[in-house]
Amino acid sequence: MAVNLLPPEPKALLRVAGIELGYTYAGIRKANRNDVTLLRLEPGSRVAGVFTQNSFAAAPVQVCREVLSGSGEQSTQIRALVVNAGNANCGTGEAGLAAARRSCEAVAKLVGCAPGEVLPFSTGVILEPLPVDKLVAALPHAVESLAGSPAHWAGAAEAIMTTDTIAKAASSTVQAAGKRISVTGMAKGVGMLEPNMATMLAFVATDAKVAAPMLRRLVKEVADESFNCVSVDGDTSTNDSFVLIATGAAGNEEITGTGHQGYAPLRQALLDVAQRLAQAIARDGEGATKFMTIEVAGAADRAEAARVAKRIANSPLVKTAFFASDANLGRLLMAIGNAGVGGLDVSRVDMYLGDVQVVERGGRAASYREEDGARVMKAAEITVRVELGRGDASARVWTCDFSYDYVKINAEYRT
Amino acid sequence: MAVNLLPPEPKALLRVAGIELGYTYAGIRKANRNDVTLLRLEPGSRVAGVFTQNSFAAAPVQVCREVLSGSGEQSTQIRALVVNAGNANCGTGEAGLAAARRSCEAVAKLVGCAPGEVLPFSTGVILEPLPVDKLVAALPHAVESLAGSPAHWAGAAEAIMTTDTIAKAASSTVQAAGKRISVTGMAKGVGMLEPNMATMLAFVATDAKVAAPMLRRLVKEVADESFNCVSVDGDTSTNDSFVLIATGAAGNEEITGTGHQGYAPLRQALLDVAQRLAQAIARDGEGATKFMTIEVAGAADRAEAARVAKRIANSPLVKTAFFASDANLGRLLMAIGNAGVGGLDVSRVDMYLGDVQVVERGGRAASYREEDGARVMKAAEITVRVELGRGDASARVWTCDFSYDYVKINAEYRT
Repeated sequence: MAVNLLPPEPKALLRVAGIELGYTYAGIRKANRNDVTLLRLEPGSRVAGVFTQNSFAAAPVQVCREVLSGSGEQSTQIRALVVNAGNANCGTGEAGLAAARRSCEAVAKLVGCAPGEVLPFSTGVILEPLPVDKLVAALPHAVESLAGSPAHWAGAAEAIMTTDTIAKAASSTVQAAGKRISVTGMAKGVGMLEPNMATMLAFVATDAKVAAPMLRRLVKEVADESFNCVSVDGDTSTNDSFVLIATGAAGNEEITGTGHQGYAPLRQALLDVAQRLAQAIARDGEGATKFMTIEVAGAADRAEAARVAKRIANSPLVKTAFFASDANLGRLLMAIGNAGVGGLDVSRVDMYLGDVQVVERGGRAASYREEDGARVMKAAEITVRVELGRGDASARVWTCDFSYDYVKINAEYRT
Repeated sequence: MAVNLLPPEPKALLRVAGIELGYTYAGIRKANRNDVTLLRLEPGSRVAGVFTQNSFAAAPVQVCREVLSGSGEQSTQIRALVVNAGNANCGTGEAGLAAARRSCEAVAKLVGCAPGEVLPFSTGVILEPLPVDKLVAALPHAVESLAGSPAHWAGAAEAIMTTDTIAKAASSTVQAAGKRISVTGMAKGVGMLEPNMATMLAFVATDAKVAAPMLRRLVKEVADESFNCVSVDGDTSTNDSFVLIATGAAGNEEITGTGHQGYAPLRQALLDVAQRLAQAIARDGEGATKFMTIEVAGAADRAEAARVAKRIANSPLVKTAFFASDANLGRLLMAIGNAGVGGLDVSRVDMYLGDVQVVERGGRAASYREEDGARVMKAAEITVRVELGRGDASARVWTCDFSYDYVKINAEYRT
């Protein structure tokens, strides 16, 4: 059902020197489905992350936060990441924390590092105990399969999936700081998805050498313009994690700040990969049949623009109208009006559906004809553009429609 | 599909002296469906209302606000209300305002009052011109049918429906200020429904004599504990209106303030009718197969409790799990965690599904067994109770589940 999205071709992915991936089957998710993934990093790699804003942060998120802040900064010495799909290890109390720590210890022993150099990640059902024995028992197989090939990136992208129908991975390469730099990332997450700081699970790695404070800044900048622009259903997961890994294997002069000549090209390459992954998440949104881009301009500030865009993207009435290809565009007005924009002068609001002006100064545009709206609505990819007439700020959100299959997938999630 | 909801029996409804209802078919909504309703009030009746907070308030809402504030207060001399279903007259600019005013003028001429003594109401599709000629042409038939009988209340409740499957009307009677007082109300609205000050359309009338400032206070108090506790999909309509009518025909000593002996019994009777109508709206929510009550206690203040309750009620993931009778209760934790409660100590959160404790101190309750959760989930009516452990405030929301039929109804709304 994913909208204009194909599985990643290994030949379109790039090896990132300094990182290897392994995966295996532990029986946590489904029979005969890889569900445990391991990432091994060369010594000297730097890692920074952003995590869910949900108060019920999952146990692995709590452990990640602990580890990454252990050195007093958000990027510390990390040698491995372990990911399981099928169980979120959330709402599991002290036992859940112990299980997450035990998985880190088991990985540490296998790859030869300290437990505090391993980050754990989980995705799946909330409020059920993590079957950590199964996870630990499977780890040696994951270690055996470790390799850095593009095919391994593709395989790992598949092993972290839950209700995703298609694996998501992307690469980019750029000349920065005198070296050829590679960036490859993978992500998963198709429901319970309105990332606030990060998406469910996304891992982006580069072989660039990046100073720790720079990496911490980059992970936030990139999240804000990629994963934080996606909304499938407005529900922020308890397990959202976006991690940026810089192995340093490219041997470039270290990128230390925004004034460094390598900063702009590296940022662009990271953003390129992160935005492709973010869009892939919306294209593969649960039950998606349409991919929508909501652009809001003329706002007083970026937060206001984002609020309006998300209100449109999350309205069940807007989403069902898109599913039906029905140009019931009054629902878009309703959503704009509900975004809590204080003192909104509706007589300054314009709205376009694709290239068709629908709303002019708060009312139906004189030029609007139903058949023009109907034509745009038939497409699989649709852009809605709103002009608020209040200022210069803008924001963009990628989302999908709301279909019978969204209900089906979420009604039958645990069966 | 409505959950435990039957059409109003005329014999269970009470005549309210001083008010008559008429209705007819104008062809605005569907062939052979009454879609225009008229309420005629005796001179001396007082009216107060609360309206949508959506920035795109519909033309009739703008006119109502104008009229009701014309006398410098929210309750003025009103002789008639006119309601059409099938078209919201919203996003229609100056032409829409003119159409709303023209319908008031036509009613004024027919019932013999000033145009400024008529309130207009519309519900239906947004962003399409109101066919006001059809409306005006039908009005004489509505006037001919005017009567105050319980059967006319039931007929009017049907004529204001859009995607409602069942008409909603209720009555209550009470001894207040030395007289027997009657209260009868009707409401409609089953989607685009998270009233903020009022529901889509609700009219509650009493024959009690109530001072204007008292009536203005009562309409807000009653809205807060009835219609404002309903959410079907989190989308606040552009046309929400809740109007309280006091004809004064009961001849009681005027109820002037909260210290008056008639205040408490009248408030209780109004609340009784309004809450039954509000619950009826959730029971008849678009596609509803379950009726859920979300109770949140132990909050720092009422707004916080309401925010948590609405976040649960509006989560598509929670709603689809209830539709499937699947005790996927981690989604409830997720929703609580997303409510933006600053500094929430999750280790103090408890949660119950019916009589079953599911969450204890932020994690799965030791006593919880999946089969107990599954048993409660099978019922058509389910109460979720959350204890936040932060204070003494509480709030309650009535909602429904999210089914295939919600998608179907909203995908095919205009066809």
